[in-house]
Amino acid sequence: MSKIDYTRVLPCLVTVANLLFGFLAIIFIIDSQVNLGAGMVLLSVLMDSMDGKIARKLKANSDFGKELDSLSDIVSFGLAPAVMIYVVVYQTHLPFWGLWLSAFFAICGALRLARFNVLNVSDYFIGVPITFAGGFMALLLLFAQTIPWQVFPVMMLLLSVLMISSLQVPKLGK
Amino acid sequence: MSKIDYTRVLPCLVTVANLLFGFLAIIFIIDSQVNLGAGMVLLSVLMDSMDGKIARKLKANSDFGKELDSLSDIVSFGLAPAVMIYVVVYQTHLPFWGLWLSAFFAICGALRLARFNVLNVSDYFIGVPITFAGGFMALLLLFAQTIPWQVFPVMMLLLSVLMISSLQVPKLGK
Repeated sequence: MSKIDYTRVLPCLVTVANLLFGFLAIIFIIDSQVNLGAGMVLLSVLMDSMDGKIARKLKANSDFGKELDSLSDIVSFGLAPAVMIYVVVYQTHLPFWGLWLSAFFAICGALRLARFNVLNVSDYFIGVPITFAGGFMALLLLFAQTIPWQVFPVMMLLLSVLMISSLQVPKLGK
Repeated sequence: MSKIDYTRVLPCLVTVANLLFGFLAIIFIIDSQVNLGAGMVLLSVLMDSMDGKIARKLKANSDFGKELDSLSDIVSFGLAPAVMIYVVVYQTHLPFWGLWLSAFFAICGALRLARFNVLNVSDYFIGVPITFAGGFMALLLLFAQTIPWQVFPVMMLLLSVLMISSLQVPKLGK
């Protein structure tokens, strides 16, 4: 057994927190607690913005951390928003097409993450990042009572396509 | 734009089907259709056993396909069984500890997948594969009415620990 390197463990713990909040988001939505569910995804956005910075500061970037980051991202920003918006919006207003739209969003998120890990472009993003797409949909969910429901399928389809597009998106806050 | 290579697309489509069935598993469980939910995870097991074989046969193995495979696996075999068993078993019998046990299962699954992608050992698995752990929990769920509920937390904890263990598991059916 190799000795545990705590500088490597800390950023991974933050990434695990990202995954945990994504899991809890789905559980809260099943329990009809919409705002708490959306809040969990927004907490995941916070974790996702911190783990990379902590890893760079501690010089603890690792392939393991990068893989774990993607696996957490697909749960928190791909699956959780897709399930949440299906349950809160589509189940009532758009049951058939909404189901496939939610599935499409999660699939585009996975394609985006797989491409990101393979391309290894570091100066800009290619396609809208899944963290932005998932975080934005969770934010919209907080206003589900006040905005027309049609906003959800339109924004979801738009963000799905933008995730797998070749659009170059500048990196902010590096 | 580069020309689409269809031999590379086919195995990825099977992997996307794995992700889709994982997403549908969670949706069916929210809709109280337990057997259909468990059946979706078992379909994901089938897809997961096929994509690698098809890729090897077509000589279309790719890093992109490998990344996409892990992202689908965490959804279908980590998150979906964790959410399903929380909803079907723990919500009634073990609400507090069951929640954390389900989260632990999903987290161990992610750690297992991240380690697998980094280690690149090809002769045997290190730790029980997440496909086996998630598939086994889905299979158990089909018998939820006939087996004591205590079997679920015990098996889930055992499989979680076995996933992140250093146990060498032989590869079958290569």
